[in-house]
Order: sequence, then C-alpha cells, then structure tokens
Amino acid sequence: MAVYTQVSDEEMSAFVEGQYDIGTLVSAKGIAEGVENSNFLIRTTQDSFILTLYEKRVRPEDLPFFIGLMDHLAAKSFPAPRPIHGRDGQALRELNGRPAAVCSFLEGMSTSRPRPMHCGRLGEVLARFHQTSADFTMTRRNGLTLPDWRPLYEKSAARASEVDPSMNEVIEGELDYLEANWPSPDALPVGTCHADMFPDNVFFMGEELSGVIDFYFACTDFLTYDVAVCLNAWCFERDLSFNATKARQLLTQYRKGRTMSAAEIEALPLMARGSALRFLLTRLFDWLNTPEGALVRPHDPLEYLARLRFHQQVSGPGAFGIDP
Amino acid sequence: MAVYTQVSDEEMSAFVEGQYDIGTLVSAKGIAEGVENSNFLIRTTQDSFILTLYEKRVRPEDLPFFIGLMDHLAAKSFPAPRPIHGRDGQALRELNGRPAAVCSFLEGMSTSRPRPMHCGRLGEVLARFHQTSADFTMTRRNGLTLPDWRPLYEKSAARASEVDPSMNEVIEGELDYLEANWPSPDALPVGTCHADMFPDNVFFMGEELSGVIDFYFACTDFLTYDVAVCLNAWCFERDLSFNATKARQLLTQYRKGRTMSAAEIEALPLMARGSALRFLLTRLFDWLNTPEGALVRPHDPLEYLARLRFHQQVSGPGAFGIDP
Repeated sequence: MAVYTQVSDEEMSAFVEGQYDIGTLVSAKGIAEGVENSNFLIRTTQDSFILTLYEKRVRPEDLPFFIGLMDHLAAKSFPAPRPIHGRDGQALRELNGRPAAVCSFLEGMSTSRPRPMHCGRLGEVLARFHQTSADFTMTRRNGLTLPDWRPLYEKSAARASEVDPSMNEVIEGELDYLEANWPSPDALPVGTCHADMFPDNVFFMGEELSGVIDFYFACTDFLTYDVAVCLNAWCFERDLSFNATKARQLLTQYRKGRTMSAAEIEALPLMARGSALRFLLTRLFDWLNTPEGALVRPHDPLEYLARLRFHQQVSGPGAFGIDP
Repeated sequence: MAVYTQVSDEEMSAFVEGQYDIGTLVSAKGIAEGVENSNFLIRTTQDSFILTLYEKRVRPEDLPFFIGLMDHLAAKSFPAPRPIHGRDGQALRELNGRPAAVCSFLEGMSTSRPRPMHCGRLGEVLARFHQTSADFTMTRRNGLTLPDWRPLYEKSAARASEVDPSMNEVIEGELDYLEANWPSPDALPVGTCHADMFPDNVFFMGEELSGVIDFYFACTDFLTYDVAVCLNAWCFERDLSFNATKARQLLTQYRKGRTMSAAEIEALPLMARGSALRFLLTRLFDWLNTPEGALVRPHDPLEYLARLRFHQQVSGPGAFGIDP
C-alpha cells in the first residue's frame, strides 16, 4: 500500500519514452496497490499502463518466470496484464536501481464482498488459468510450501502467543500433521499456480470477470492447492463462517473448465489446511514485524487461524458443498 | 504519500454512481499524492476524476472555501481541478466518515528540476491565479503566518537542536525580527494566495503549464507572500544555492500579468524570510514527530534553514535578479 521507490516525473518520462514505443507520457501517479512492490499508473498519448518497480521481497531471479508467465497468458488472451516489450525486445529492465517492467492496464473493480456469482466466475477463470498455463514450460518452486512452513514459524514462535494464546499449540500440531500427510510431488497433478488469487487481485466489470493481476507469488505446485487458496480467500464470510454455497459455485465452475481427479478432490481438505497455514504464518510474521506507525497495516493473522480451525474439523470434501 | 482511509470498490461505486452523473465506475486506484489527504484516481465510462477524502489535517470548516475557490477558478477556465457537483448540486459530501469531493483529473507531469523556463511559466500562471481570484469573495485567514509561528516553534523548541545545533538561535532571532517588521494587513495588497505552489503541485505538458493542484493551504494574505513562497520553492538549486536567473524569470513573467507596487517589491525579501520560516517550522515539527518506520518520509527542515539564512543576508529585492 505504498510507493517505496520514488521516481521523478523526469526519470519516468525518460524511461518510458526512451525504452518503449508507447507514446509520450502525459501523467504518472504512484498507486497504493500491492504491499510488495512500487506501482505507478501511467498514461501516455496512446493508452494507460502500470509501471512496477520490484522491491526487496521479490527475488530478481524469479522475475523472468513471472514476466514469462504473463507473456504466455497474454499471448493466449487470458485477461492478465500484458508485459510491454521495449524497442530492444526486453520486458524486464531497471529503473532507479530496481528491476522494473511496464504492463498493460486492466480495467475493472475488485470486490470486497464476493457473492456466490463472483465465486463461480472465479472458478471458471481459475480453471482457464490452469489450462492456459498447462504448456508454459518455465517452473518456479513454491517458496511458501511444506518445507518452508516450519522455519517460517520458528521466526515468530517466541511471540506468537501475543497474538492469540492458542497460536503456538495450533500451529505446532498442524505442522506435525501436514508434515506427516502432505502428498509427494508425483501424487497429484502439478502445474502453474497463481497462489494468491485473493479478491483484491481479481477485477470485475459488472458480473464479468475482467482481469487477474499480481502474479508475483505464481509458482509450480499442486493445482488443487491453488483451488484451496481460493476457497480460503473467497468463501469465508466476514464473521469467519464458511459459505458452502460459494464453495460449491467455485468448485462446480472450476470443474467445468478442468476435470479434477478423484485424488485431487479427496485432497482438497488437506490442501485447504496447508493453504490456511501458509497465510497464517506469513500474516503472523508480518503482524509481529511491522513497525508501529507504519502506514501498511498488516492483515490480521486471526482470520487465518479461524480458517485453519474450520478445516481441521472437516471430515471430507463434502464440506465444500460438492458431491465428490 | 498514502491512502489513510480505505474505501472498498463497492463503496466507491455506490458513492460515485449514487451521487453524480459522471457514468459508471470502471476502475479506482488509491494514489500516493499529497501528504494530507486520501486520493483516488477513478475512471468512469465518461472520464477520469480524483476523489479526495479529507483527513484530519484539513479542518472541515475550511472546505467550503477550498471548494468555492476551485469552483471560481474553473468557471474562469483557470487550469485547476474542477469540483464535480452531484445531482443535489453539492460538491462537498461525506464518504466513510470523511468529508469527500470529486474533482476533474488534470493531465501533466510535475518537474523535480525546474529550469528557468518553468519558473517563467509559473510566474505567468501565479499572476493569472491572483487576477482570476481577485473577485472571489470568500476569505480564509492564513493559519500559518506571523501570529502562528511562535506557538508552532514552541512545540519543537526543546528538540530543535537535534536537527541542527544552530536551529534554536536562528529561529528565535528570526521570530524577533519578523515580529518587529512584518507589515500590517493594510500595508500591502491582500488577496487569495495558493500558499503552497511547489513544483509537485504544478503540472506541465511539454513546455506548457497544464495545471495547478492542491488548494488546501489557500488563504487570504499578502499576494507578495505567495510570490515569495514560489521564489523559495522554485529558485533554489539542489545544493541550496539561489538561482537568480530563475527568480528573474518568475518575477518578470509575474509582473507582466499583475503589476506589483513599489512597496510589494520592496517587501519581497521580508516575505521570503517569512515564507522560509513558515516551511522551516512545519518541516521541523513533522521531522520531530514522524514515527520511525512511517512510510511518509518528512521533508528535510535543513533545506529551509539554508533558504532562511540566504534571505537573512539579502540587502534588497535586487538579489532576486530584478531591477526594482
């Protein structure tokens, strides 16, 4: 929610007009979108674009994967930002000491209160994303999955009880459970996951899903894991109750676009637990490590503690409103 | 440089479409512009606009003056944001507990390295602003002028030497001097001042000045004071040396648009000292009171200590590159 790297209008003009054939810059505004990078909404005499400067949470060696994925999606008309290639053919370059890229601007509004209809659209587009990226050949290990969870927890363990008295016990029990039960890489279909398809990364125009943004957690992992991330992000109400109608919409539309195997469906509750733990752990870490007075307000880890507890009680995929 | 009040896309759509006849909302981005308020760049099916939520530094009772001034300027085609009036005729309303207004979006880029040409354009447009607002009938006392400076200093006095060892002595000496020499209200022409026409509040398209924004310090004060604010903001180099060519451009173009009396020209060095002290005091206060880790980095007060010291050595308006 901030611009971390300042870029003067002169630097911006020199960059845009010097490197790209997208017209003359007529305005540039730093925008409060994404907590990871600095983003500028720029307008040229031709069109609107987003200029992103990648900040320290993004590893430069991962950028070719992210840009390559967006290139791949754009070539197949998937509604994601299209990286703009400069006169030299490159989409990834440097500005003010940061890796930087210009992408097309996507219109649309995100929803903070998804209705079942939105969840259906999401399922449809998530399946399309998985199908479209099936022949994308680059891979990136998910840096926030099973082997990463315990070390991440250990960074917060000493102060976790400040957030909730049961935090340590719940997380430790869950780590033990997931380490004993997480599938081996060949047990379930693997592919390119968005891995962060939260409502604020999905735009709608009226009832149509108009765009998906923020591919900077994308990775190669179980496709059912990506479905589970969405179940957690879209199907819980503000009071943290689970809305099975939304889950049914999401899964039904997803399965129309991509067939899920019996094993994948069976694995959904486990994937939902893993995904809940992943977001619980990163939120817990950010909560404990955000300086007081910072303008970036961290997400509340308790929202994901509640999700995890819900999934711990689930007996099978039927809880998600589907008939396996 | 932040969005202080969050507004969901749904709330934004309901507000824009419910209150105004400006089309359907197609995108909304919180923008990092202005340190005082929350601003959103919104696009509708008709055009682009800025939605501003006024935060606690702006007194609600001052808003009718600011909006009234922008209405007045827009009616006379001065290039400032035009307040959009809703179906009920009102431009000022409320959103998420904050006073809020929608204004037209101005294209253009600000300059962080003004050249003499830019200073000439600025002088021209500042004169036009003073002439255009000459028949604006509302008034607002400048809340950051002579009677306000000493109380403001006293809030920082105890820790001022942390910023510079000479800070207390320089400010106290200057306060004494200005209190003894500041003109009485009827001594010089008074009118509507922008009072904050810094380079980041002025847009250019090529060499043309395309817009002036941020009228939220506008007030009724000596017009020469407004000129002095600009001399300080536009005519010092990064190394804090004074560029008399820029000052000459600014003043020469200003005087083509509005005749300055001999008394006004004579008062310029004094006004420049007062304006330098005003920004020194607010920057000093912000510098000492910004929590560590905050994303809004305060402006460096030392830049204005250097300006003040320059003006203390000036013998007359000739120092500003003009022939009085």
